[in-house]
Amino acid sequence: MSGLKITDFSVHDVRYPTNVTGDGTDAMNKECDYSAAYVVVNTNGDLKGQGMTFTIGRGNEIVCFAITEVAKRIVGMEIDSIFADMGAFFNFLISDPQHRWLGPEKGVIHLATAAVSNALWDMMAKYNKKPLWKLICDFTPEEFVRSTCFRYCTDFITPEEALALLKAKEGGKKAREEEVIRRGYPAYTTSVGWLGYSDEKVRRLTHESLAQGFNVFKLKVGADAQDDLRRGQLIRSIIDDPANMPKDRKVDPATVADKNAGPTGCVLMVDANQVWDVPQAIEYMKVLEPIKPWFIEEPTAPDDAVGHATIRKALKPLGIQVATGEHAHNRMTFKQLLQLDAIDVVQIDSCRTGGIQEILTVLLMAAKAGKIVCPHSGGVGLCEMTCHLSIIDFIAVSGDMTRNVLEFVDHLHENFVHPVSMKDGRYVVPLEEDCGYSVEMFPESIARFTFPDGAYWKAVAEGNGPVADHLGLKKH
Amino acid sequence: MSGLKITDFSVHDVRYPTNVTGDGTDAMNKECDYSAAYVVVNTNGDLKGQGMTFTIGRGNEIVCFAITEVAKRIVGMEIDSIFADMGAFFNFLISDPQHRWLGPEKGVIHLATAAVSNALWDMMAKYNKKPLWKLICDFTPEEFVRSTCFRYCTDFITPEEALALLKAKEGGKKAREEEVIRRGYPAYTTSVGWLGYSDEKVRRLTHESLAQGFNVFKLKVGADAQDDLRRGQLIRSIIDDPANMPKDRKVDPATVADKNAGPTGCVLMVDANQVWDVPQAIEYMKVLEPIKPWFIEEPTAPDDAVGHATIRKALKPLGIQVATGEHAHNRMTFKQLLQLDAIDVVQIDSCRTGGIQEILTVLLMAAKAGKIVCPHSGGVGLCEMTCHLSIIDFIAVSGDMTRNVLEFVDHLHENFVHPVSMKDGRYVVPLEEDCGYSVEMFPESIARFTFPDGAYWKAVAEGNGPVADHLGLKKH
Repeated sequence: MSGLKITDFSVHDVRYPTNVTGDGTDAMNKECDYSAAYVVVNTNGDLKGQGMTFTIGRGNEIVCFAITEVAKRIVGMEIDSIFADMGAFFNFLISDPQHRWLGPEKGVIHLATAAVSNALWDMMAKYNKKPLWKLICDFTPEEFVRSTCFRYCTDFITPEEALALLKAKEGGKKAREEEVIRRGYPAYTTSVGWLGYSDEKVRRLTHESLAQGFNVFKLKVGADAQDDLRRGQLIRSIIDDPANMPKDRKVDPATVADKNAGPTGCVLMVDANQVWDVPQAIEYMKVLEPIKPWFIEEPTAPDDAVGHATIRKALKPLGIQVATGEHAHNRMTFKQLLQLDAIDVVQIDSCRTGGIQEILTVLLMAAKAGKIVCPHSGGVGLCEMTCHLSIIDFIAVSGDMTRNVLEFVDHLHENFVHPVSMKDGRYVVPLEEDCGYSVEMFPESIARFTFPDGAYWKAVAEGNGPVADHLGLKKH
Repeated sequence: MSGLKITDFSVHDVRYPTNVTGDGTDAMNKECDYSAAYVVVNTNGDLKGQGMTFTIGRGNEIVCFAITEVAKRIVGMEIDSIFADMGAFFNFLISDPQHRWLGPEKGVIHLATAAVSNALWDMMAKYNKKPLWKLICDFTPEEFVRSTCFRYCTDFITPEEALALLKAKEGGKKAREEEVIRRGYPAYTTSVGWLGYSDEKVRRLTHESLAQGFNVFKLKVGADAQDDLRRGQLIRSIIDDPANMPKDRKVDPATVADKNAGPTGCVLMVDANQVWDVPQAIEYMKVLEPIKPWFIEEPTAPDDAVGHATIRKALKPLGIQVATGEHAHNRMTFKQLLQLDAIDVVQIDSCRTGGIQEILTVLLMAAKAGKIVCPHSGGVGLCEMTCHLSIIDFIAVSGDMTRNVLEFVDHLHENFVHPVSMKDGRYVVPLEEDCGYSVEMFPESIARFTFPDGAYWKAVAEGNGPVADHLGLKKH
C-alpha cells in the first residue's frame, strides 16, 4: 500500500494562438486557438497526474470551471483504491446525479470527466513506472475488462465476449510489442491541406511530407466542391508521380495493395468537419470521386448514426468509405455507429469520450465489428495521447496495424515534456518509464500561454501581439 | 421599427430545496434540488425577455457561466432583426465555432443556448402582446417554417414537406384554438409515485389526484422490480376501482378506449430514468407486465436510438410502448429515434434542446412519423413552458390531442408570475397578453433562492435550514 491520497489539484486554461498562423482551419472551425483545459492532480507524495481535454479557444474557461467541479469530488481519495479498480472509479466519476443531468455523458461535463480521468491514468502509469500503453498492455484480460465501461453497451458487447476477444490476442502480445517498437506505428499527415492554405503552400507541404516519409494525406473540404476538387487533384498529381518519391522511400506493401492507393502507393482522404446534411454529403462526394478518397471524414452531424449509415450505403458504389468519431460524444454513439454498420473507420479521440475506460470499450466494440481504429489527433496534446491508444489497440485488442493510420499534425509538440517523435512517417513508440500518458506540459508553456494572464496573452491585450515569431511558435 | 436593442443581461443561479421534501427522487436522480439557470435579457426600452434552463442542483453554476458566454454574443443586436428571422437567430446561436466545439449542440453549451433562445422567444411574445403559443399559432406556415431549424434533418423532413404539412392543418386552426381554450389540454400526474415515497403516501396521493380529475398516472421504477410491481399494483387497485372515482368525473372517451386503460378508463405509465442496459430493460419490464403500463419511459441511455428500437420490438407483444426524449439532447437524436421507429411517444423538453426553433423541428418530425408528443414537464418552470408547446402542437402541427397527455407535477408554481392553472385534470390555456413564455419568476423568489447568497441558502449555511415549512415550500 502506498498510503498516498489525492490532496488537491490545479486547473489551467492554456491557449496557444494558432489562429495567427492559419493552422487548423476547416469548413466548420475558423479562427481556432488550440487550447487545453489542463489539470494537475497532486498527492501527499511526489506523485502527480497530468490530464487535459482539448478545445479550440473561447469556451475553454467553461470546461476549466467544470473540471474544478468534477475534480473536487476526488480530493481525499486513496490512490490504491482508485488504481485497484479503474472501472469503478469511472463509474464514480459519471454517476453524480446532479452533474449527470448536465450531459448525461456528453458536452462540457464529459470533457471535464475526460480531463480528470486522463490525469488519474497518467498518475497510475507513472506510479507503475511504465508508459500508459505498456501499463494497459501488461494487464491480464481480466484486469483489462475490469477497467472498461460496459454500461449501456451490453446489447452489443458483454464483458464475457470482451474477455474471450482479449484472451484470443494474449499469445501474440509480446511479438506485437516488439514489432511496433521496431517499426513504429503508421501515421498520416493532415498538415498539407487545411482550408486556409494557398495552393502554393499545399504544393510545398505535400512535397515536404513525402520527403518526411508520409504516404497517406488528408485534405480538408466542404467550402466549395470545385475548389476542393482542384486542390485534391493538385495533391494527387504530386503524390501519384513516382518522380516525386524520396530515394530511400519505404512503402508499406499494404498501402500499395489498397484499392484507394494511387500508382505510387499513396492514399488521400478528405474531411468535411460536419458541414453537410445527409443528402448534401452524398451529392458533394460524387464531385470528389475523381480524386479517389479512401474515406470521407465527418460528412454530417457526429451524433447521426442513421445519417452516416445512409451516406455509407450511397458512397459504397463509388469506393469511398466513411469515417467519424472525433466528436462522437460517448461509447453509446460509437455503439450505434457500429450496430448500424454506418462507418468503416472508427476515429476515437483521447479527450472527447470520458477517458481510457470508455476508449477501451470503443476499441473492443470496433474489434468485434471488424472495423479499423484511426484516432483523431493533432490539436494540442492529442498526438501525444493517441499514440498510446493506437499502440494499445495493436498490441492488446485488434492485433492489426495493416491499414490503420494515426493522424499526425506537426503542431505545438515543443510544449510537452515527452513529445511524440516521428520516423519515416511513423510514430516512434514512447518508452520513457516516467512519461505516463505523455500529457505533461512544461511549466513555462503553461505559464506563458495561460489565458488571459500569461505573458503571451498579456502582450496581446497590451497591443504587442499576436506575433507568432516572437513566441517560439513554428511557422509552416 | 421598434429601435430597440439588447443592452445587457443578468444571469441567476436559482435553486429550490426540493431535496428537503423528497420530491423528485427516482432511480437515477437522488438528492435533487430543482434549479433554474435563469437569464433576464434587457433592452433600451421596458421590454425584457426571461429565459431559463432546468438542472437538478449542483452544476447549475456551470450552466449559468455558459449562459453568460452565450448571451454576451447577442448584446447590441437589434430586436427587429432578430424577430424578423428567428431561424437565422438560432443558427447564429449554434454556429460559434469555438462554443460549438464544446457540444456540438449538446450538454452545457446547448442548455445555455436554450436559456438564451427561450428568453428571446419570451421577449418576442411580450412585444407582440400574445402568449407564446398564440404568437406561433398565428404564424403563417411560411413564418413557422422559417422559424424552424432543419439543419442535419433534411434526410427525414425538408422545409417543403413541413410547409405542406402545416398548410394541411391551416384550415382547422381556429376551431382547435377554440376547443383547447374551452376544454383545456389533457394532463397526467407524476406526483403520486416518486421513488422516495412510502406506500401510504402513494395511496393518499393517488386518491387526491383522482379527486383533482386526473385519469393518467406515472410511477417511477427501476430500483427493485418486485417492489415496483407491488407499488404499481397498489396504484392500479385504487385507479381501477369504480368506487374510488369522484362523482362528477369527466373521463375522456379516448382514454377509456385505450387498450392500456383499466375498467375505469384510468391509465398507468412507468418511468425508469435511464437505469437499465437494453437487455435488462426488457427483462425488468416483463416483471411489470401485470400492471399494464401504457409505456416505459427512459428505459436506457437517452442517446441510444438503436437500443430503444430493440426494446420497443421486444415489448410490443406485451402491449407496452416506449417513450423517451427529456434527455434527447438535440433534433438529430429525435430524428434517429423516429427514423428507427424506436419510440411511440415523443417527450420533448422545453430546455434540453436549444429552444423553440429546435422544438418546432421535433414537432414537425413527430407529426410526419405519426407519433404523439407528450412533453417532459415538472421540475421548476417546465410545466409553465411545456403548456405552450403542447398547445402549439395541437393547434398548428399534429391537430390532435386525443391520446396526448402533458406531464403535470405540482411543484414550485407559486414562484412564477404566470403559473400554470389546472382544471379537471387538464391544463388551462394561458391567455394573458403579457405572459410571454410564462417563464418569468417573481423577483422575491429569485432573490430568496439564489445560490449561495440568497436568504434561504444563507440560512442553510448558517445552520438554520433546511426547513421547508419556514420558507413557504409546499409539503405533500
